[in-house]
Amino acid sequence: MAIELYWGSGSPFAWRVMLTLEIKGLAYESKLLEFSKGEHKTLAYLQLNPRGKVPTLRDGGFVVCESLAIMSYLDRKYPTPPLFGTNAEETGLIWQAISECESYFASAGDKVVRPLFFGKGLDNVDEIQQAAQAIRAELKALDARLSARNWLVGEAISAADVAIFPMIQLILRAASKAAAGPFNLQWLPLAKFYPHIAQWCERIEALPNYQRTYPPHWRA
Amino acid sequence: MAIELYWGSGSPFAWRVMLTLEIKGLAYESKLLEFSKGEHKTLAYLQLNPRGKVPTLRDGGFVVCESLAIMSYLDRKYPTPPLFGTNAEETGLIWQAISECESYFASAGDKVVRPLFFGKGLDNVDEIQQAAQAIRAELKALDARLSARNWLVGEAISAADVAIFPMIQLILRAASKAAAGPFNLQWLPLAKFYPHIAQWCERIEALPNYQRTYPPHWRA
Repeated sequence: MAIELYWGSGSPFAWRVMLTLEIKGLAYESKLLEFSKGEHKTLAYLQLNPRGKVPTLRDGGFVVCESLAIMSYLDRKYPTPPLFGTNAEETGLIWQAISECESYFASAGDKVVRPLFFGKGLDNVDEIQQAAQAIRAELKALDARLSARNWLVGEAISAADVAIFPMIQLILRAASKAAAGPFNLQWLPLAKFYPHIAQWCERIEALPNYQRTYPPHWRA
Repeated sequence: MAIELYWGSGSPFAWRVMLTLEIKGLAYESKLLEFSKGEHKTLAYLQLNPRGKVPTLRDGGFVVCESLAIMSYLDRKYPTPPLFGTNAEETGLIWQAISECESYFASAGDKVVRPLFFGKGLDNVDEIQQAAQAIRAELKALDARLSARNWLVGEAISAADVAIFPMIQLILRAASKAAAGPFNLQWLPLAKFYPHIAQWCERIEALPNYQRTYPPHWRA
């Protein structure tokens, strides 16, 4: 039975898994859920993913939810190329980069992205500006790291790159919204403010089949 | 050179790593940092951990931060007993349990624990009650899962148990504070509300050298 991936367009978490599948050259059946139609809240889907979140991966009879868990599963099941390191030190540094993304970057990102995407809470100017500043600090650290290396950890693309790239794409998309103008976020143009992150993004975008992973509704 | 662990008393993140070290039978040098004296913000410590957080682990010349990253490093470097699963499916389910803890349990916990420990924001009654309810839902799901099994994933203790146990201990300690009374949290007594979690906690507390990991200032 083929691998099935349940995902939603624009979910950075689903994007992580799609990149993982493409890098490993794994064929999969795409199950695109339309959030606007509530397809992630149907009884059938809730049996796979009781929280009604994306992504969910089914591989034969095995079901696993949560992006980092799916990536970990795929890396152990289909180890080539390895995405969680070739030795213990790399494994530790990859998970450190991912943990820092989850704990510091993504939580701050959420406070900016939601208002800019959905228009709700745009009057919490102080909170948005504080979060925007926290993101600038994280981007600055990533840019410094990428000034000396092609990938965040080790000599090849790893789960750190795969996990962090979609989160950056999400905040940049939010920054491109008209509502972002008054906040002077200083995230865009990326090549101006964070040139090494911009080059790293280009390396990821040059991966084979990258285009298959790009959120379809972002093209519109 | 011995393993060195920089930690702080009462940090659930440091507790995860101490449990990991004890389960693997690894000797380590304890570097207890006194938060009240700012020992996690000294220049020397910030060179190891630029965010000034605990835990940090040093193993010979290698330094790694963030609890889950340290656990991943230790598991690959010292694989016996394995804490991240004995096959791909277990690995996926262990990381799923950990991810769900980080995304849903810990974030809700933070909204309750901080006010109860530090007395700040206790007037945000609605937010605290909403978070308390979210935690009850997570505890209920964990309790149901543990009604049929000794450990969260697989046949032995895993990183899922190790990562989640200290987070539960932290919220229970918050619930024992006088300030928690008016909120009627319904987390304690644990054996009444969540009997299978209580039995699981007893299993963890029965591990060899568990007492060495218990936050020293919680005994006072």
